[in-house]
Amino acid sequence: MSLPRPGKVYLVGAGPGAPDLLTLRAARILEAADVVFHDALVHPETLALASRAECIAVGKRCGKHSSAQHFINKRLVDAAAKHAVVVRLKGGDPMLFGRAQEEIDALLHAGIEFEVVPGVTTALAAAAQIGTSLTRRGVSRNVIFVTPRVGKSEQPSDWARAVVTADTAVIYMGAGEAAQITATLSARGVSLDTPALLIENVSLAATQEIRCTLGELESASARLGAGPCVIVLGEVVREAGSKIAPMIQAARAGAGGS
Amino acid sequence: MSLPRPGKVYLVGAGPGAPDLLTLRAARILEAADVVFHDALVHPETLALASRAECIAVGKRCGKHSSAQHFINKRLVDAAAKHAVVVRLKGGDPMLFGRAQEEIDALLHAGIEFEVVPGVTTALAAAAQIGTSLTRRGVSRNVIFVTPRVGKSEQPSDWARAVVTADTAVIYMGAGEAAQITATLSARGVSLDTPALLIENVSLAATQEIRCTLGELESASARLGAGPCVIVLGEVVREAGSKIAPMIQAARAGAGGS
Repeated sequence: MSLPRPGKVYLVGAGPGAPDLLTLRAARILEAADVVFHDALVHPETLALASRAECIAVGKRCGKHSSAQHFINKRLVDAAAKHAVVVRLKGGDPMLFGRAQEEIDALLHAGIEFEVVPGVTTALAAAAQIGTSLTRRGVSRNVIFVTPRVGKSEQPSDWARAVVTADTAVIYMGAGEAAQITATLSARGVSLDTPALLIENVSLAATQEIRCTLGELESASARLGAGPCVIVLGEVVREAGSKIAPMIQAARAGAGGS
Repeated sequence: MSLPRPGKVYLVGAGPGAPDLLTLRAARILEAADVVFHDALVHPETLALASRAECIAVGKRCGKHSSAQHFINKRLVDAAAKHAVVVRLKGGDPMLFGRAQEEIDALLHAGIEFEVVPGVTTALAAAAQIGTSLTRRGVSRNVIFVTPRVGKSEQPSDWARAVVTADTAVIYMGAGEAAQITATLSARGVSLDTPALLIENVSLAATQEIRCTLGELESASARLGAGPCVIVLGEVVREAGSKIAPMIQAARAGAGGS
């Protein structure tokens, strides 16, 4: 069956992991969805909101299977010919390291109407979880979001150039490249003593926080499980965990493990 | 009336403006709130969720009245002695330019339990609105969030140091300092032709987008109204608005002006 005119594609941020960190708008759109193409790590309770929809995992996780991007683009365009409400559900926020631009460009090229629904990005949910603001008067007046994964035409250390001058850095999809991160930043003059915090499975019951320094990043990352992870670097995390942990534990117990 | 043990304080992100960009968790907490201390710009429909609560504006807007921070801290601590569920509702996300750390430190010092609920930050809602990813393969591998407002002990141009090397920059609370932003970044070698986009009242019906260059920032900002504004700088916004605008307009019409 083909619609008389194409449907609309919603690129929706699913948030950092916990299903109740979804926005009200995203929940409403999921409830109306005919088909949902979702990242592998979206929470089952979030997908359950799309009660009318066929839910199709498109399998990307932490940049793996990225050769499938062209295929995902095509599926979104094809789905809009058949369905009124097509959702592309992405972990975190679509506009940060989500490759949304490639999907948007494909939709524009095909003349398909689209709308982007922002989400809570993992870095901010991580800051909430550890009770530590990413900006702070007198300590950090800016924060950079960066990934050490590079495209084929880029130099392997290009990603680090801007990190050196930022007050706080949040590194997405970096836990598997801890040794490279330490070597690259150290070579650019960042102190090996720079405070670091690795946070796996942000906002989920299975979350794990490991406090270390830039120099200890590789050994610390070896203690992580297989979940997605962000690394926060900078003075703001020097005391995070130590003085905050008991309060956070209490808060988590009160929130019923979400 | 005093509680047998102190209540809990929730530092909650209200999101960028549109009431349906609140998270499900934030909505649930507002519904249970006894008292809500909110920023001046929180949407009335968001406050209406707190149907049981007394809602008290604590008046900060874009950094104005920041001398009242100490007083806000005290009110949160005092409220926790009287109420079980105290909410501090902040525009955007609490952990980005929200001075949350000062409130958290006051709560820790007083032994009050707290929890931070992250929100959609304005930069990401702006990217969604203009249909342009802040990171993009081959164009932008990082994004920095920064404010040109500085503390008393800082050099006026310190804020710009990290902006120079970042691929994309989102400047919060900067529209009133457009001339200083242009002069400071230009003096540090950023081209006056760098694409810029000013977005006022992100996610609201009254939003306004002005595309210009770094060199034109002051004249462009003179066309803004009195609403809050973010400035996006970098190659990612070179075409934003021109090719995207018709689709976005259509999307907005479909979303009923939210």
